[in-house]
Amino acid sequence: MSRPTGLIASKGIELLTWGTPNGHKISILLEELKEAYGLQYTTNAVNIGQNIQKEPWFTAVNPNGRIPAIVDHDNGGLAVFEGSAILSYLTRRYDPDHRLSFAPADDDYTRAEVWVAWQHGSVSPYQGQANHFVRFAKEKIPYGMQRYVGETERVYGVLDARLRDRDYIVGPGRGKFSIADISLLAWVNGIHFTTISLDQFPAVKAWLARCLERPGVQRGFTVPSPSMGGSALKPQEGEAAQKTKELRELVDQAKEQYGYKYTSP
Amino acid sequence: MSRPTGLIASKGIELLTWGTPNGHKISILLEELKEAYGLQYTTNAVNIGQNIQKEPWFTAVNPNGRIPAIVDHDNGGLAVFEGSAILSYLTRRYDPDHRLSFAPADDDYTRAEVWVAWQHGSVSPYQGQANHFVRFAKEKIPYGMQRYVGETERVYGVLDARLRDRDYIVGPGRGKFSIADISLLAWVNGIHFTTISLDQFPAVKAWLARCLERPGVQRGFTVPSPSMGGSALKPQEGEAAQKTKELRELVDQAKEQYGYKYTSP
Repeated sequence: MSRPTGLIASKGIELLTWGTPNGHKISILLEELKEAYGLQYTTNAVNIGQNIQKEPWFTAVNPNGRIPAIVDHDNGGLAVFEGSAILSYLTRRYDPDHRLSFAPADDDYTRAEVWVAWQHGSVSPYQGQANHFVRFAKEKIPYGMQRYVGETERVYGVLDARLRDRDYIVGPGRGKFSIADISLLAWVNGIHFTTISLDQFPAVKAWLARCLERPGVQRGFTVPSPSMGGSALKPQEGEAAQKTKELRELVDQAKEQYGYKYTSP
Repeated sequence: MSRPTGLIASKGIELLTWGTPNGHKISILLEELKEAYGLQYTTNAVNIGQNIQKEPWFTAVNPNGRIPAIVDHDNGGLAVFEGSAILSYLTRRYDPDHRLSFAPADDDYTRAEVWVAWQHGSVSPYQGQANHFVRFAKEKIPYGMQRYVGETERVYGVLDARLRDRDYIVGPGRGKFSIADISLLAWVNGIHFTTISLDQFPAVKAWLARCLERPGVQRGFTVPSPSMGGSALKPQEGEAAQKTKELRELVDQAKEQYGYKYTSP
């Protein structure tokens, strides 16, 4: 892939993204909209390892300098950033039959908004910081490791309780697959990266397997490339598995050092 | 105030809250809706220092165990949690003239959603963690202090750039006071708690002063009690000022130790 230097489409939706949980959240929705309505979109692959998202052409679209962002060339070039706002915009405009969302007059519209916001303000910040302290920080800081792995476990406990008697997060009866699920599943699929195992959260694990059966979800996870960390449902092997095991031991030691105790509903 | 053991209202909006930036965000909107339409609401003060938000009656409303949350007794007792979802719900339902929000068909509706989401997923997570590492953590962790104070400075730089030629965050011309401002101003009003001074962000400082002139905003900041940290616009004095100065020195040392360099648009 060549290094992008600007927008590349002139009609339809242009998705500026990279193969991360926040990026896949939007490509999954766009693939599901393609499946449901034939909606087409153009992918502009923005390699965040090269800091392309900090270049002026990109910050003109998203002044916060982060992927994902979209530009709707069919709506005067409107730029939308922040995952939860993009999910909302795309379904309000391009999901007229509410196949992946709910009608605004329906209380489930509000409930979907609640769970998407919960993902946006709790799951991804905590899990993102857990990834940072466990994997990326140049030194191992036990306090940070146990704090963010611990908070991530707490929020996964909340999700597990929500899914104990449902197939999907929002919707009548056992629920309907919607943006509430889409906002969460790319993060859940990468949870092993924090050293947390989904075996601790059986309802979440079953829900992830259910979502991953959908062709739109499967395709969305390949745009523009699969996540480097694989899937929480596929056991890691070899060096990767050994590395996670070692990191898990460090996390466990950090938890002991600070008297961490798991609490969640 | 006595310790609440359940919901206390049977009609209208019941707000479960405490005197924090996330709590004030909602009481400010409710006071503005009272000002605009005469909307009444009941406050249920949930002392988070006593962990009341983890009790079963509260987690039946918000399974995530955090304030703020609302229950709309006039809409079948619908429970709504997560600040950005509450702002959206209340304005969709109780702001028919869009005095504090925008019509769904208007692109500014989307832009307000974007900036509210940005607050929810970037400003409050970073600033909240900065507060934790600077003020609340039992030991001073230089890495955490500089990481989160640094990220908070970065996002305030984004906001300062946005406000450089506007009075309010979203809206035509120089903008219109809306939930995009409301979502941010309670956090900005407490920025000094992280040791960051608003003098570094003059457009943000002027915008905060502008918002604080509104009677609804002023009243919202007192529900159920003022923030313990005061306002970023009032210089701290005495012991509080001395403490902040000492913490600022620790933050500066931490930044030097890790080679922190401020970058923002």
